[in-house]
Amino acid sequence: VLVPEGLITPCLLVEAAVLEANIAAMARRAQDLGAGLRPHAKTHKCLEIAVRQLAAGAVGLTVATVAEAEVFAAVCDDLFIAYPLWVDARRGARLRALAERARVRVGVDSAESAEALARHVGDAVAVVVEVDSGHHRSGVDPALAGVVAVAAARAGLPVAGVFTFPGHSYAPGSGSTAAADEAAVLTRAAESIRAAGLPVEVRSGGSTPSAAATVAGAVSELRPGVYVFGDSQQLELGSCLPGDVALVAVGTVVSRCADRVILDAGSKVLGADRPAWASGFGTVLGHPAARVLALSEHHATVHWPQALPDLGSTVAVVPNHVCNAVNLADELLVTNAGEVVDRWAVAARGANT
Amino acid sequence: VLVPEGLITPCLLVEAAVLEANIAAMARRAQDLGAGLRPHAKTHKCLEIAVRQLAAGAVGLTVATVAEAEVFAAVCDDLFIAYPLWVDARRGARLRALAERARVRVGVDSAESAEALARHVGDAVAVVVEVDSGHHRSGVDPALAGVVAVAAARAGLPVAGVFTFPGHSYAPGSGSTAAADEAAVLTRAAESIRAAGLPVEVRSGGSTPSAAATVAGAVSELRPGVYVFGDSQQLELGSCLPGDVALVAVGTVVSRCADRVILDAGSKVLGADRPAWASGFGTVLGHPAARVLALSEHHATVHWPQALPDLGSTVAVVPNHVCNAVNLADELLVTNAGEVVDRWAVAARGANT
Repeated sequence: VLVPEGLITPCLLVEAAVLEANIAAMARRAQDLGAGLRPHAKTHKCLEIAVRQLAAGAVGLTVATVAEAEVFAAVCDDLFIAYPLWVDARRGARLRALAERARVRVGVDSAESAEALARHVGDAVAVVVEVDSGHHRSGVDPALAGVVAVAAARAGLPVAGVFTFPGHSYAPGSGSTAAADEAAVLTRAAESIRAAGLPVEVRSGGSTPSAAATVAGAVSELRPGVYVFGDSQQLELGSCLPGDVALVAVGTVVSRCADRVILDAGSKVLGADRPAWASGFGTVLGHPAARVLALSEHHATVHWPQALPDLGSTVAVVPNHVCNAVNLADELLVTNAGEVVDRWAVAARGANT
Repeated sequence: VLVPEGLITPCLLVEAAVLEANIAAMARRAQDLGAGLRPHAKTHKCLEIAVRQLAAGAVGLTVATVAEAEVFAAVCDDLFIAYPLWVDARRGARLRALAERARVRVGVDSAESAEALARHVGDAVAVVVEVDSGHHRSGVDPALAGVVAVAAARAGLPVAGVFTFPGHSYAPGSGSTAAADEAAVLTRAAESIRAAGLPVEVRSGGSTPSAAATVAGAVSELRPGVYVFGDSQQLELGSCLPGDVALVAVGTVVSRCADRVILDAGSKVLGADRPAWASGFGTVLGHPAARVLALSEHHATVHWPQALPDLGSTVAVVPNHVCNAVNLADELLVTNAGEVVDRWAVAARGANT
């Protein structure tokens, strides 16, 4: 990413050509696997990027909330809310309105939540049963997928299939294990639903760190999100290379001394995410020896063992977790060869409900 | 904090009576110390809260960015940007416009940044020299405060005094040490400036975890921020009690199994901050045995060793770092005895530039 002159910092830059290459590469990967690509839009939250993903062959979009679905319904008529929603009357009314604009599928991982959903939306949305493939967050044991599916069907909901998030891919060297777990669990969950007498159209999985290892035939659709931008976590997991990073935060050097540089891009710009295995709070592009030691809200404290950059100069930092960085911004500056060529609104920023 | 029925989750609640009590308590503390209180508005970013702090006797507000100053100039005519700004022509023009609405002071920690500031604002704003009291972020050694002050004065800037942020108070048991360091460093820095022939009107310090230990006479003004709400970090540092917590994030139980509960309030609501010494990613109010083990963007994974709460019920979580949680929200719901009585816009959300 070439940083233009004269930016008002802190800000987020997206290099258009790298973004397009990432979109195309994952589209090819899904095609090679014989799976549909349904990118997770929570990463970018931008209509302009969703449109590019759909133009490159995505079968629809994944979102995490009803509010995100409401935003992306402007450009997409096939939405999967990959989340075990608890639906009350108000959320139900929003889902029914959404279902008039798009095909809507919703995650479910308990009989109770399926019944609450059915009570408020009837059969206007279909459900996909969430199963746990090793991330131990939401999702049932695959042996119980049939039980949840039957409860949903009895409540009157169309059952589309099963999904999992192999989020345990977010640890060094775990991509292949997570992909193998995903394949095994989706297969067992699909069997559990079929054994209960229901069809399974969808076996949905995928994450950026496991995408290279996804087992062909095990998934009918993939839901990676971060791949559009890459980030410091993906760099350290080996699931992208520096040249694949499409988004950086740009900060100005506001203070420096000895081997320390302070940038005006802190946790209110980069996000505070830091897994235990990460080397810092982000990666300084082009300066592999620099380490982002600490973030305050408006300061990044960077250990800089080489010649220090000038006060007032700009430094590009790759955020650890790009989804949270994007959600802190109102807009992304789109660049091409060091020029700002467009500004994209983060249309679904804060769309948490 | 009593959680009202029928909330749309996730959301942030502020209990008005607790907020008012916190504002009054810190006002008393500053008075006891004979210091002015200049609360840091980056914590709350709300005009309504700033107005209450000023009504309780605050001498002005502290902010971190020019953009925050622009927001709070609507209700306050005495603003300190406690940050070593790097000022170019555009930021300079904004500072000059601001200086027509309010008295503006700006942090400085190098001759170069003082000269850049003077080049673009003339003498429209005064500077306060930042010194490092042990947090090792920005700020010079106190022995060098006079050098920076003289450079600023030669560039034509009024020099108001010295400031430090004793941020090393953010570790268990460190409040008193940080306060002692703050006192020593502000005294030495003031001597350094006086020895250079310049007057010192302001000796500014303060942080919420060190406020109870602030050395009387060492500071002329205090800049704590978090005290208005409290948060999980302050609870674990012992600088507030559960009854002092004025802000919680409310999530709905969307999934549960064995000893695990999933809430719909993740890192896009609570923020991902987690210092190494914290017991988790937040505190579950009223359930001390529950631990927020992990945050995804839209999931809090809570270890819940007792009887699990019902699916669809709400749970109040105290964020680890309230400043970042507030900055993720568009509004705060104000409650009184379990009723939502008002909604305050997070007017300075995202005001990072």
